[in-house]
Amino acid sequence: MIIVTILLLTARVSYSQDSIQYVDAATLMMVGKAKTTDSIYQRIDSTEAKDMPQAVKGLAKQSAGIAILFETNSRIIRAKWSLPKEVYLHNMTPDAHSGLDLYCFKAGKWQFVSIGRVVPGINQTQVVVQNMDSTMKQFMLYLPLYNGVSELQIGVQKNATINKPVRPAINTAKRIVVYGSSVVQGASASRAGMAYPAILQRQTGYDFINLGFSGSAKMEIELAKYLATVPADCYVLDCIPNPSPEQITERSYPFIKYLHEKQPSIPIVLVETIFRQNGLWDQQVGSTVKRQNEEIRKTYERLKKEGVKNLYYLESDKLIGDDHEATIDGIHLTDLGFTRIANAVWPVIKKALAEKKQ
Amino acid sequence: MIIVTILLLTARVSYSQDSIQYVDAATLMMVGKAKTTDSIYQRIDSTEAKDMPQAVKGLAKQSAGIAILFETNSRIIRAKWSLPKEVYLHNMTPDAHSGLDLYCFKAGKWQFVSIGRVVPGINQTQVVVQNMDSTMKQFMLYLPLYNGVSELQIGVQKNATINKPVRPAINTAKRIVVYGSSVVQGASASRAGMAYPAILQRQTGYDFINLGFSGSAKMEIELAKYLATVPADCYVLDCIPNPSPEQITERSYPFIKYLHEKQPSIPIVLVETIFRQNGLWDQQVGSTVKRQNEEIRKTYERLKKEGVKNLYYLESDKLIGDDHEATIDGIHLTDLGFTRIANAVWPVIKKALAEKKQ
Repeated sequence: MIIVTILLLTARVSYSQDSIQYVDAATLMMVGKAKTTDSIYQRIDSTEAKDMPQAVKGLAKQSAGIAILFETNSRIIRAKWSLPKEVYLHNMTPDAHSGLDLYCFKAGKWQFVSIGRVVPGINQTQVVVQNMDSTMKQFMLYLPLYNGVSELQIGVQKNATINKPVRPAINTAKRIVVYGSSVVQGASASRAGMAYPAILQRQTGYDFINLGFSGSAKMEIELAKYLATVPADCYVLDCIPNPSPEQITERSYPFIKYLHEKQPSIPIVLVETIFRQNGLWDQQVGSTVKRQNEEIRKTYERLKKEGVKNLYYLESDKLIGDDHEATIDGIHLTDLGFTRIANAVWPVIKKALAEKKQ
Repeated sequence: MIIVTILLLTARVSYSQDSIQYVDAATLMMVGKAKTTDSIYQRIDSTEAKDMPQAVKGLAKQSAGIAILFETNSRIIRAKWSLPKEVYLHNMTPDAHSGLDLYCFKAGKWQFVSIGRVVPGINQTQVVVQNMDSTMKQFMLYLPLYNGVSELQIGVQKNATINKPVRPAINTAKRIVVYGSSVVQGASASRAGMAYPAILQRQTGYDFINLGFSGSAKMEIELAKYLATVPADCYVLDCIPNPSPEQITERSYPFIKYLHEKQPSIPIVLVETIFRQNGLWDQQVGSTVKRQNEEIRKTYERLKKEGVKNLYYLESDKLIGDDHEATIDGIHLTDLGFTRIANAVWPVIKKALAEKKQ
């Protein structure tokens, strides 16, 4: 009887702060990074960003697409993270723009676990999940989509192990680099893991690099120059929502031409802009979207005519279904829209990768 | 040539404030209301709510599920609305908790148009949509899910018509009354029209009455007494996420028994709680959810054994798919989850209505 009592007492884990050890996430594994950067949780190194437009420089400091991989047998996972600023976005949840999103690799698949939810303010401390069994598990913790992270500590039980995964379930040697607009950056996913590059990262095990720059993916040549230096198995250019039709006419050809000439063996997938659902009512918006897609189509056809082989093209009408319910505001995708666009984009990337191998 | 010039000038509509007339939404048609109320945009009349729990009284003042129906040939729709308070919810967008959501009835279907987005503060003034053609159209404007509306003005062009629809595309004589938790109230839809009662309202043309009381749908007998007075063709009880297993054991039988005895001809659809996705990891959460569903199942079986015929039951595993991606936080559905639960709930309601007619 004494033995039984002791066992029960041991099984009742105390979750007080005293029993938690915090580990700097910087010591664990990171995925979703284009390259190493001066400030660890930003997307582009400040020196490399110096010739980019001001807006892109700012957005490059946001942590969209970056995630921490680790394994632990802790029954609880806590997180402390500091945000550089408080963000308000009418069309995003605080959990998406500033929160954390935790997945676990279970039976060969990534499965959602829970989120690090956000309270008003800069410094966040949350229990992400507790009362788990104490088997060793591999986790992936996505960082905020529309904010930065100045510091991140992961808390586990003092007597638990936490380390880089022995066999990471994301292969950082297989890299899909996605340059794009707010849709790529993740507006308006409910949480970081539902941006479409993140969905595809989990589904395929490839590392997806989120270079979505909200409202600012305008195909400046500086961005093509940067992209050409990012190791990739495939480039996805889903930036058509941002440049005006005139800018697409002017910039898309030299942009793609440059990238292709620097990296001739790496396939490029061009994605038309989703048809803004409010553009089915607002005739000015509708006309602009139509012209954006006409202009990128012309560039695609010109490059194909010039003999560029590994260039792929995905039409607007295949992206988000036809019930008009995939967006929050006509422009930005919800989890419903992201699920659909992920299903539309992957077959084209897959085809591009397969033909590359031949 | 002169005629052409004049036509072009006329076609260029000015959208300055001067050219807009505002109409009090209270003079138009309202759907999604259980009954008339003292304060027009709340869900339950204050006198009728007086014996209800304090939390329910507060939530009943929020406008979830209420929408304004009107028709207009204006090329622009503006809205001015006042919120009783500023809301912060970590797992909802400002557009969902405090914004407006506009649909138009087109070719026999409701189609999303645009939203009235929310800026920080109490008083909101927004262009919802502009640059439309000037044909007469029927619109439905959903009110905030997790806030109230103290005043609402709809702005159209001065020379345009705006009135109650001649042939409303929602039939307020066909009424499905949904009592439930935050999931019913609409957390975490991206916008008001994506809460599942609203989705079903548009898909079926039936009026769906949203009596979702976030965290507070605990089956107190006062709520059964109120529900029994609400005209309905079918009651949906999707409240199991809120009461504890013990409360379900104690309250669900008298609650349903009362409702059935007062309204014996109205079918009742019982919906199990969705399995909290974080409960697949947090063993305490998982065990509670399992017990909640076991307890409501027992009540259902007891009532069936007693010969209650028009009682229907929908199991948890049929509600939100099996990819674990339907929620923002393990608990609250996103538009992806709401689309799925709408598809799961409707066939059961439809069956209940069909069997009622026989």
